[in-house]
Amino acid sequence: MAAGTRELTVDLGERSYPIIIGTGLIAQTGKYFLDRGFPIKSPILLITDSSVVDLYAEKVEESLAAAGYSVTTAVVPSGESSKSLEMLDELVGAALQAGLDRKSTVIALGGGVVGDLAGFVAASYMRGVRFVQMPTTILAHDSSVGGKVAVNHRLAKNIIGAFHQPEFVLYDLDTLASLPMREVRAGLSEVIKHGLIWNEEFVKWCDTNASALLALEPEALGYALYEGCKVKSIVVSRDERENDLRAILNLGHTIGHALEAVGGYGELLHGEAIAIGMVGSARLAAKFGYSPDIAVETERIFRKFGLPVRIPSSLSTDEIMSAMLHDKKFSEGKMVFVVPTAIGSVEIRNDVPSAWVTEIVDGLREGDEQP
Amino acid sequence: MAAGTRELTVDLGERSYPIIIGTGLIAQTGKYFLDRGFPIKSPILLITDSSVVDLYAEKVEESLAAAGYSVTTAVVPSGESSKSLEMLDELVGAALQAGLDRKSTVIALGGGVVGDLAGFVAASYMRGVRFVQMPTTILAHDSSVGGKVAVNHRLAKNIIGAFHQPEFVLYDLDTLASLPMREVRAGLSEVIKHGLIWNEEFVKWCDTNASALLALEPEALGYALYEGCKVKSIVVSRDERENDLRAILNLGHTIGHALEAVGGYGELLHGEAIAIGMVGSARLAAKFGYSPDIAVETERIFRKFGLPVRIPSSLSTDEIMSAMLHDKKFSEGKMVFVVPTAIGSVEIRNDVPSAWVTEIVDGLREGDEQP
Ligand SMILES: NC(=O)c1ccc[n+]([C@@H]2O[C@H](COP(=O)([O-])OP(=O)(O)OC[C@H]3O[C@@H](n4cnc5c(N)ncnc54)[C@H](O)[C@@H]3O)[C@@H](O)[C@H]2O)c1
Ligand SMILES: NC(=O)c1ccc[n+]([C@@H]2O[C@H](COP(=O)([O-])OP(=O)(O)OC[C@H]3O[C@@H](n4cnc5c(N)ncnc54)[C@H](O)[C@@H]3O)[C@@H](O)[C@H]2O)c1
Ligand SMILES: [Zn+2]
Ligand SMILES: [Zn+2]
Repeated sequence: MAAGTRELTVDLGERSYPIIIGTGLIAQTGKYFLDRGFPIKSPILLITDSSVVDLYAEKVEESLAAAGYSVTTAVVPSGESSKSLEMLDELVGAALQAGLDRKSTVIALGGGVVGDLAGFVAASYMRGVRFVQMPTTILAHDSSVGGKVAVNHRLAKNIIGAFHQPEFVLYDLDTLASLPMREVRAGLSEVIKHGLIWNEEFVKWCDTNASALLALEPEALGYALYEGCKVKSIVVSRDERENDLRAILNLGHTIGHALEAVGGYGELLHGEAIAIGMVGSARLAAKFGYSPDIAVETERIFRKFGLPVRIPSSLSTDEIMSAMLHDKKFSEGKMVFVVPTAIGSVEIRNDVPSAWVTEIVDGLREGDEQP
Repeated sequence: MAAGTRELTVDLGERSYPIIIGTGLIAQTGKYFLDRGFPIKSPILLITDSSVVDLYAEKVEESLAAAGYSVTTAVVPSGESSKSLEMLDELVGAALQAGLDRKSTVIALGGGVVGDLAGFVAASYMRGVRFVQMPTTILAHDSSVGGKVAVNHRLAKNIIGAFHQPEFVLYDLDTLASLPMREVRAGLSEVIKHGLIWNEEFVKWCDTNASALLALEPEALGYALYEGCKVKSIVVSRDERENDLRAILNLGHTIGHALEAVGGYGELLHGEAIAIGMVGSARLAAKFGYSPDIAVETERIFRKFGLPVRIPSSLSTDEIMSAMLHDKKFSEGKMVFVVPTAIGSVEIRNDVPSAWVTEIVDGLREGDEQP
């Protein structure tokens, strides 16, 4: 179960940080803290969720304690609903009770939910303390890199947040072994997305190595997460605050978010919804005159990974279209979309007729097997 | 009632911004927005409190509307308890309903409570939108400059927040006319503090012009707020994130915060509590061998402004000392204090024996008239 440790840097000037990917890393948490000069005197708050706590929290605590740190663990319920201001309030209470000071660190041990929530705690507690990401899902290769942290509001997802970069990302592949298979596939959807927007070679590699990835073979997985994080970190380095380039990371997300919203977050996992969305964007590409092979190829690869490529019949086109309207990506009958121009590259179009989108959503129905 | 408009710049590289101080400014809000290129298409959220809304909100709305902006006003209850996550939740809801986008602006129209709360809304809505401060209290000359924004937690004040600098501060002296006299005095306490830490000349000027200031004479007030903001902005420019120098702004605040906490926020206004605290710090200076005249002079000037210089008998020394302990400024029987070395300059000491502090708190009792 061992794989070489890979490391890459998110290049953000004085806010640069390393992403460390490998096996057996959790047991070395304390060493990483010491090596980076995290102060022994300042207490650490470890935030995790109810599914992850029993699996991995103790190992993290033990490693930090052995290195001389004092750690308090706070557990939130597993699931998206923990990304709330109520939970922020509770966690700040926990931080105060644990005596966290301005030199303290908040660790996120979990998937994207824990990462986004703990990150916002770290961003706002005492106006910002150190933050460390320890992702335990495949999807979190995406969420743990780039510094976007947030909680949800009743009326909108991720609307209350900050840009708060971690000090480092410690990604222990061993933790992925306990992931439900559906979460594995959904996470790989974002990995493939990183290939689709930036790196054709890597898409081919994913295609060739699909079975090793689905079997969580550490060497393949380590490489794939490394490449996925690399694309994300290059994009983030060039546009930390999403002024322009960073928007390409949203390939498949316009339709994907609408599917999640209409399905009520639960029908489809995020990675599943964006797989369908990426097929939709690829079909849009054909409308703009790019090769129809992009859509065929995109669909084939997602099918190979056991990901959905059709919209469930329970979700109506009208509802999906109005969710997109609500998402504010419309303007005067035109929509903004990330559209592939080939496998491995995309462009941002703000001139997508909403009629085309309706047509494509209609066409992406189960049972409809020709692209 | 007219006074020349004064302007100074808070120098923070690409986050630099102007503070504009004068009369009749509210009616020009729209012009300031246009001049600075704030986008007409993006809705504005004006946040104010229940005491200020009827006095000044309409004028701001009208000025912005005349310039072509769409404005929605959100009103929070007057008072410290509005600095809460619940209110953040409500205001984010208001922002969403008003359709605020990433290029929108949040305006704070009010005292420090509205400024801190609205600032945190601006810092966290969509991970940060534009923010404009329109202070309407004297104390807010302090809170509106420097970018510290926050809400309170049940267990601690200002513990959930961000550094989020405004685009500009528009300080209309006319709004101060409606302030209760007690708020005027308390606000002037922070103005004088800025002199005490940085500028002996300005302390003398305040002393000479006490009656003009208390009468809210616009020319004197404009000058005093300009000088107060100047000291704050110089300090903030050199240490935006309170790594070292910015701590000098806490002169009088160690004792002051403890008095507020023990009194239960209400017994003493913030500016009153720190006036007493500044007398305490000046007495501490004598213990360190600095001239005892500093304390005599400090006390005299605060008396002249009608500010309290003695601890109310309802607050016990034990409680005050343990509030300071809770405030984490102790370490091994020693405390951190900002101590004046002369009128107009201070140093930060981390070697203050807590016994000295107890002695000084004991000595600062009503009825005890010798320094
Ligand atoms: N900040 C960003 O840039 C960014 C990017 C993408 C997604 N996100 C956010 O990420 C979230 C989704 O992340 P996610 O898919 O990781 O969700 P998640 O955190 O909810 O994890 C998915 C499920 O797996 C469980 N789990 C986590 N690790 C496990 C493990 N090792 N073994 C067994 N079970 C485990 C969790 O308890 C949860 O039930 C969303 O809230 C999304 O908004 C953020
Ligand atoms: N961010 C910072 O750097 C900083 C610095 C100092 C203080 N503060 C914060 O500022 C707050 C105190 O500020 P404050 O003293 O302005 O309190 P405040 O905002 O509560 O205002 C004091 C009272 O005056 C009323 N009021 C405001 N403007 C008025 C006007 N023009 N006419 C009549 N009434 C008016 C308010 O409704 C309130 O009742 C505290 O929460 C403190 O933590 C922040
Ligand atoms: Zn995504
Ligand atoms: Zn103060």
